[in-house]
Amino acid sequence: MNSRPRARDLGIKIGTLEPGNWNAITDVPGVRVGHTTLIQGDGKLNPGTGPIRTGVTAIWTHAGDMFLEKVTGVVHRINGFGEVTNAEQIREMGFIEGPIMITNTLNVPRVADAVIDWHFARNESQGAETWGVSPIVAETSDMWLNDIRGRHVNREHVFAAIDSAASGAVPEGAVGGGTGMMCYEFKGGVGTASRKLPEKFGGYTVGVLVQSNFGMRQQLMIDGVPVGRELQDYKDLRGLGDLEGLKKEDSGSIIVIVATDAPCSARQLERLAARTHNGLARTGSYTGNTSGDFTIAFSTTRRKNHFNDTLTVTVEQIVETGDLINYLFWAVVEATEEAILNSLFKSDTMIGRDDRVVPGLPIAETVEIMNRYGHSNVHLP
Amino acid sequence: MNSRPRARDLGIKIGTLEPGNWNAITDVPGVRVGHTTLIQGDGKLNPGTGPIRTGVTAIWTHAGDMFLEKVTGVVHRINGFGEVTNAEQIREMGFIEGPIMITNTLNVPRVADAVIDWHFARNESQGAETWGVSPIVAETSDMWLNDIRGRHVNREHVFAAIDSAASGAVPEGAVGGGTGMMCYEFKGGVGTASRKLPEKFGGYTVGVLVQSNFGMRQQLMIDGVPVGRELQDYKDLRGLGDLEGLKKEDSGSIIVIVATDAPCSARQLERLAARTHNGLARTGSYTGNTSGDFTIAFSTTRRKNHFNDTLTVTVEQIVETGDLINYLFWAVVEATEEAILNSLFKSDTMIGRDDRVVPGLPIAETVEIMNRYGHSNVHLP
Amino acid sequence: MNSRPRARDLGIKIGTLEPGNWNAITDVPGVRVGHTTLIQGDGKLNPGTGPIRTGVTAIWTHAGDMFLEKVTGVVHRINGFGEVTNAEQIREMGFIEGPIMITNTLNVPRVADAVIDWHFARNESQGAETWGVSPIVAETSDMWLNDIRGRHVNREHVFAAIDSAASGAVPEGAVGGGTGMMCYEFKGGVGTASRKLPEKFGGYTVGVLVQSNFGMRQQLMIDGVPVGRELQDYKDLRGLGDLEGLKKEDSGSIIVIVATDAPCSARQLERLAARTHNGLARTGSYTGNTSGDFTIAFSTTRRKNHFNDTLTVTVEQIVETGDLINYLFWAVVEATEEAILNSLFKSDTMIGRDDRVVPGLPIAETVEIMNRYGHSNVHLP
Amino acid sequence: MNSRPRARDLGIKIGTLEPGNWNAITDVPGVRVGHTTLIQGDGKLNPGTGPIRTGVTAIWTHAGDMFLEKVTGVVHRINGFGEVTNAEQIREMGFIEGPIMITNTLNVPRVADAVIDWHFARNESQGAETWGVSPIVAETSDMWLNDIRGRHVNREHVFAAIDSAASGAVPEGAVGGGTGMMCYEFKGGVGTASRKLPEKFGGYTVGVLVQSNFGMRQQLMIDGVPVGRELQDYKDLRGLGDLEGLKKEDSGSIIVIVATDAPCSARQLERLAARTHNGLARTGSYTGNTSGDFTIAFSTTRRKNHFNDTLTVTVEQIVETGDLINYLFWAVVEATEEAILNSLFKSDTMIGRDDRVVPGLPIAETVEIMNRYGHSNVHLP
Repeated sequence: MNSRPRARDLGIKIGTLEPGNWNAITDVPGVRVGHTTLIQGDGKLNPGTGPIRTGVTAIWTHAGDMFLEKVTGVVHRINGFGEVTNAEQIREMGFIEGPIMITNTLNVPRVADAVIDWHFARNESQGAETWGVSPIVAETSDMWLNDIRGRHVNREHVFAAIDSAASGAVPEGAVGGGTGMMCYEFKGGVGTASRKLPEKFGGYTVGVLVQSNFGMRQQLMIDGVPVGRELQDYKDLRGLGDLEGLKKEDSGSIIVIVATDAPCSARQLERLAARTHNGLARTGSYTGNTSGDFTIAFSTTRRKNHFNDTLTVTVEQIVETGDLINYLFWAVVEATEEAILNSLFKSDTMIGRDDRVVPGLPIAETVEIMNRYGHSNVHLP
Repeated sequence: MNSRPRARDLGIKIGTLEPGNWNAITDVPGVRVGHTTLIQGDGKLNPGTGPIRTGVTAIWTHAGDMFLEKVTGVVHRINGFGEVTNAEQIREMGFIEGPIMITNTLNVPRVADAVIDWHFARNESQGAETWGVSPIVAETSDMWLNDIRGRHVNREHVFAAIDSAASGAVPEGAVGGGTGMMCYEFKGGVGTASRKLPEKFGGYTVGVLVQSNFGMRQQLMIDGVPVGRELQDYKDLRGLGDLEGLKKEDSGSIIVIVATDAPCSARQLERLAARTHNGLARTGSYTGNTSGDFTIAFSTTRRKNHFNDTLTVTVEQIVETGDLINYLFWAVVEATEEAILNSLFKSDTMIGRDDRVVPGLPIAETVEIMNRYGHSNVHLP
Repeated sequence: MNSRPRARDLGIKIGTLEPGNWNAITDVPGVRVGHTTLIQGDGKLNPGTGPIRTGVTAIWTHAGDMFLEKVTGVVHRINGFGEVTNAEQIREMGFIEGPIMITNTLNVPRVADAVIDWHFARNESQGAETWGVSPIVAETSDMWLNDIRGRHVNREHVFAAIDSAASGAVPEGAVGGGTGMMCYEFKGGVGTASRKLPEKFGGYTVGVLVQSNFGMRQQLMIDGVPVGRELQDYKDLRGLGDLEGLKKEDSGSIIVIVATDAPCSARQLERLAARTHNGLARTGSYTGNTSGDFTIAFSTTRRKNHFNDTLTVTVEQIVETGDLINYLFWAVVEATEEAILNSLFKSDTMIGRDDRVVPGLPIAETVEIMNRYGHSNVHLP
Repeated sequence: MNSRPRARDLGIKIGTLEPGNWNAITDVPGVRVGHTTLIQGDGKLNPGTGPIRTGVTAIWTHAGDMFLEKVTGVVHRINGFGEVTNAEQIREMGFIEGPIMITNTLNVPRVADAVIDWHFARNESQGAETWGVSPIVAETSDMWLNDIRGRHVNREHVFAAIDSAASGAVPEGAVGGGTGMMCYEFKGGVGTASRKLPEKFGGYTVGVLVQSNFGMRQQLMIDGVPVGRELQDYKDLRGLGDLEGLKKEDSGSIIVIVATDAPCSARQLERLAARTHNGLARTGSYTGNTSGDFTIAFSTTRRKNHFNDTLTVTVEQIVETGDLINYLFWAVVEATEEAILNSLFKSDTMIGRDDRVVPGLPIAETVEIMNRYGHSNVHLP
């Protein structure tokens, strides 16, 4: 874990609900996260060779056999210029049957193929006696910093991400699939956060993990403060070069993963997933033209057995007439906003292909701006 | 009930599953159907006055308080050139909270307004202390035979349809909302059918009711036989005039209502509803450009209380890994096909506005054609 | 027009694009807005009689015959607990063929019926020789302040709203359909704003009009400032009573109308409409459970003739590879946010049924809070 | 090309419109089809090794640079238990930017990765200066006959399918992606057909290609005749073994590709694509639970340049008020039905893994049944 602070270390508290123990998607029991981070080479782009600034992230939906015991899940589209493999199957059947992977755009097929291998190693009947897994791989593009043509994430990297997945604190910033990503023209990548509902509302947990890779600097808002506008002319602080090359267009994407232990149906999860749009918008995004903004949401406690001989099952389901679902909505909005901010705060300046520099969000300047905009409780860690 | 035969009276058996007791949507316990039929005046169209060939049909989703105890339901679009009021609310929340009404296109608002009145008479808190009902009204256009500008279905007609609804055999043909409709350039209207699953698959019932108003004659197939093509030159048999005026375009619409007592979630009902497209296509439809083809499906045994103080509920749900759901699909396809055929067989020749004649499907000729095409078991009743 | 200031009168400038001449949806050439406002009676609710705090708003999509010359349009769902009549037809065919009406929830059928009358008075062939209009009516619920059971908007009110529609400055606040609405637990209703693209990007105009009726006070953000949180304990300033009765739940809805003269296809308009979610979220909304949040978007310069004998037409269409579409997106986000703020700023305290008081957003306090949060350019008008 | 007859060679004429020159998707100018067919090994399944009965099919959307000049396209879901990669991007943006590939389920990632390579070899700026291609790969499962775990389609196979694509007559049956597929419990695979509109309606061509892999034998209808029911007890004719092992469940999938030179928008293409459901249903399908039934439709004459500096373009678009669109619908329905039949007629008996035998549809028996059911014009070739 790098030493940069998270939003909450600076006194930035998004919303009113309390985070879980780790303030991470792993606060949802059973959910685990693993990263493989690939950083190699410098200088001019040599397509197919490097420099490499990429990786892959794996999210376990529960601690058991994800294929034999599928979780209820959905894929929600905010803007569709991107890919989540097998989204249609998830929509039709309402389940997710393996780890959720996030990587870069062009590596999607190789990661999907490796996920099949990973499953095959655990299950001999797949593809022989029963259907083979439908891998779930989402992506954003790291082509600004990375040799994306090289598709450098291979089978071993995928296995390592899945097999190293752990509960507890989640490494954030330039790690895993987020390694080469940028957000609001600062360095972005992986961020996570969580919210725990009051016991009165079941004490359920909502966890969010994002791979952020979108936005123009001028749009960035932190808890409502126009930090991006104030940092419009901010140059890199470490003398690594100016920002001449920094792209200035509203493009890029975000992948949002929402996990909860509230027993939600697919329809209800779709409603939760739609609220990530609110959290995203609260950080300033206008949802640019070429963004692939998708949310994958799942409930760890609504499961379906791959094999089931009965005609019906009895399932628990949240009621939508009281306040519970609004609390879940708020938890989604707050955790999404905070996860995006964490992806920014935890990402350090990175130099990538063609010596392009993407600065990390400057902490001291941000704190100063927040103070200036009436957020006096924000402070250096 | 008119004396024309239903498909099954002629030995036409669609598919392999057995129908329920009435071979009607009312075979699903609790479902009731009521019609108000309006036939008045003859001769030249006097817009706003007549002739009148229209009506309204009401379907109770269960025998209790439909607002306080909502059924799980969905609205599926086959082709969207039409209206089902409050379809979006049904999709978002997954419930239907009142009777399902079917009428003509321009009468939709008046019927919806009357449905609100009907609910208000039963529930003082609606619109005062809790939300008012969202009426469900679907439609097809009877403007070929009826003075549709007149919007002749009024409050009393709506109340009568709802209050007279009954279980048991369902009047079919030119009744209720189907009064002025036409199908494959023959007289159409209301038709219904049902299927009962084997006890091994839970013994569940699927009932379908249609308001048919679509298709070109040449497209009509009955159990695969090109009856429409063979009857292309068929003229009216009762000397009421030739068919010069009969429209010759692929337009018109169908409303399909699917009821089941299988405990299906909204997502599962959506899957059932999608199979009505198969049943529709098997009668020959190409789904014309200006058709408003919608399916409303609901489960009588998946209910939601309007008021509910608990955080979660336990619900029964069908399992999708075995054959049960395929049996439900087959039941939907077969019952839809047969319901459409019944709407044709049960509809007699009608003379409407401007002395337009729409012939009833000729029974003897149809039997003869079926025999000629190898369906030797088809016979006059 | 009432004397309360609009957001921009206070120095609140949302985003970076310039508004049009009126900073209203009417800046899009041909678009006109009309309101009928009904305020009558006081005191205890007498269901069906009053007090009355309601109305209806009409938006002309262009200045000609809206039926014979339809505009390209879409309906986008943010949260579906509400109704937009004939949304499915708009989606299937991509056109809007009459004025867009906004009223309260239970009055939707009566308004739709009146719109049919309005069209019939102008077109004798509708419902006789060609199809009858599919009226577009959207709604939010004013049951907190109004006798919504009474459905007090009648035919004459609808005609008056349509026939009085005008270009130029648009009355905002407690007018038309917005009369009895509330927003973030302050008085809400109608608001509008617009943006004009730089000439370099075609000089196109995007206009937005909202009927706001959603949100909890604590959620309200104005240009990022947590004004709602700061005004959490704000009581009515005019001594009209305390706020004991004020609802404290995340419910209510918003209707957003987006007009543009950019020649957009239905698919492109759907993309514009999706960005109103961003604008909505920027004012603080978490999109509550029972909200009916819909956006209707149309292009005044992409039209379809009701009658057209040719096989193909040539149409102009915006290109999505350059920055134009991002500018349109930004215009939508900014104008939506500002229109919602205008609906708040322009709405004065209202006393409705059962002497319920909904305070208008207090101007001086808001200015003070904005200043305290670093927005020093905000000032009293 | 194998020697088995196509439907039309037997006198089976589906519908009333005339086919194009080749009665194939290649009748649409510019469309080309290529196959790589892999058949190797016999006997017991050795997972990862064989026997191999699989392949890949490539469809060129036009004869030029498919990335720089994208065609307008859509992906339509009939039943979602399957995958079409990048479907969401196609829906959001309305374009297809490369060849459309069809293969088996588990080979999707490898084919997608190879498609990226194929593009990279032609375009150095992809992934370096502009976005990399989003490959379109669809699939059905050949696990009944093929060692699907082996994922035997490699890079060279993909290149060969794309590079060998040709206009003119299209090889059908057990070729390309269809090699190991089965349909209605007979051997299925690739089939194609086309329809040409009358000159009065623009003379446009609609071409369809399917990869069929669905259905239970008892469901099969040929031009309305219940051939499957009559062949229920049909055993293999060549003494290769009985059908003990033949699966008897309603599973499997179909991919339908629709090409047209009619200038349709994405919304209009979606409407065309929806009509393939009608064609599919007319062959008897009930759309089983685990089917992945998708339609990809595109217009060769509605194109978008990858680079475009203008703000707007002028495009031709079909008019939906006349009969043209109905003719296009009919063409889609007829060509889909006939393409599925061709996939059956052209597929010979195949022995696959574990000596499983899937019989080819018996020609003589089928002709006899057709004759018996009144289709006296059907004859041996």
